[in-house]
Amino acid sequence: MEIDPEEVGSLYRTLAGAVVPRPVAWVSTRSPAGVDNLAPYSFFTVASVAPPVLLFAPVDGPDGLKDTPRNVRETEAFVVNVVTEPQSTAMNATSATLPAGESEFDHADVERAEATVVDAPRVADAPVAFECSLYDLLSVGSSTLVLGEVERVHVDDDVTTDGRLDVTKLDAVGRLAGNQYARTDGRFSMERPP
Amino acid sequence: MEIDPEEVGSLYRTLAGAVVPRPVAWVSTRSPAGVDNLAPYSFFTVASVAPPVLLFAPVDGPDGLKDTPRNVRETEAFVVNVVTEPQSTAMNATSATLPAGESEFDHADVERAEATVVDAPRVADAPVAFECSLYDLLSVGSSTLVLGEVERVHVDDDVTTDGRLDVTKLDAVGRLAGNQYARTDGRFSMERPP
Repeated sequence: MEIDPEEVGSLYRTLAGAVVPRPVAWVSTRSPAGVDNLAPYSFFTVASVAPPVLLFAPVDGPDGLKDTPRNVRETEAFVVNVVTEPQSTAMNATSATLPAGESEFDHADVERAEATVVDAPRVADAPVAFECSLYDLLSVGSSTLVLGEVERVHVDDDVTTDGRLDVTKLDAVGRLAGNQYARTDGRFSMERPP
Repeated sequence: MEIDPEEVGSLYRTLAGAVVPRPVAWVSTRSPAGVDNLAPYSFFTVASVAPPVLLFAPVDGPDGLKDTPRNVRETEAFVVNVVTEPQSTAMNATSATLPAGESEFDHADVERAEATVVDAPRVADAPVAFECSLYDLLSVGSSTLVLGEVERVHVDDDVTTDGRLDVTKLDAVGRLAGNQYARTDGRFSMERPP
């Protein structure tokens, strides 16, 4: 079957269904008024290694930027928290639309900690958290690319081996389409050719 | 454990190990000389839904752009092919460094088909393939963000239900770190809150 994007209403379902599995950026920010925001985004990847830059791409709302990118624009700070299965229910709860002034940390009963070097909260129990400073905001079609330079990384000792992050201990949750998520414990390995 | 990026040689292993699972863009392009190129990239996501824009971020080589982004710059065209487990061995083989003029399609014995509307080959047996035209090239640190607008989508009927892509039939392969990959058949679902 061939799809011409100009002949369908939206390609969202096809994009979200085929670009899988997606890592989940559980992004925490602080509003200028001091409200701590927490929301999951799965249009998310590594933009650069040196300097280390992460990128996520929230779809703009009808009124423009969503809370998270607006907070990033104002505070120039955010934290990307990695999600494993024990926290996936709380992560999902933070995608709810809340009244202005209510924090998703409180709504989903997520314990917060203060970031070390940027002005944002982080998820205390996340196995990995990347503190980021604003690198760039780029408008692309219906979305805004939020790029942040990694200023500090928190890694739980439980997911390390010999002092380094061990992906076989992380069991991060991957986003599929619709209501579907993927576990990452079904692993296989292939040696990369020279 | 806390990591200050300025105190470590490279954050690559931590980024690639924590931003998981990553979708794999198996990108096919054509050089101006007519050599068909095929290589996997896992710094890859959806940049925008309307217009539909995909983004991947190859790390630049010591001499600047790698073959894939250079071909995209010249031809303004590429195809993102989705990888499932039966093709994962061939996908891995296309990450080899080949002599100039040799096609990864031939090296890895991958059957090609012509794209419908852009000047690039595609993987004939990919369950989903996105034909893209160049939207933008952006330099970010050590990488180049390659953005392409989706002009046509090929979807194998085997991964559809009632004429629409069905993520539970796709079983795409996810990239972890090192030599590790993840299957996506270990699924669970959560209903998104209002």
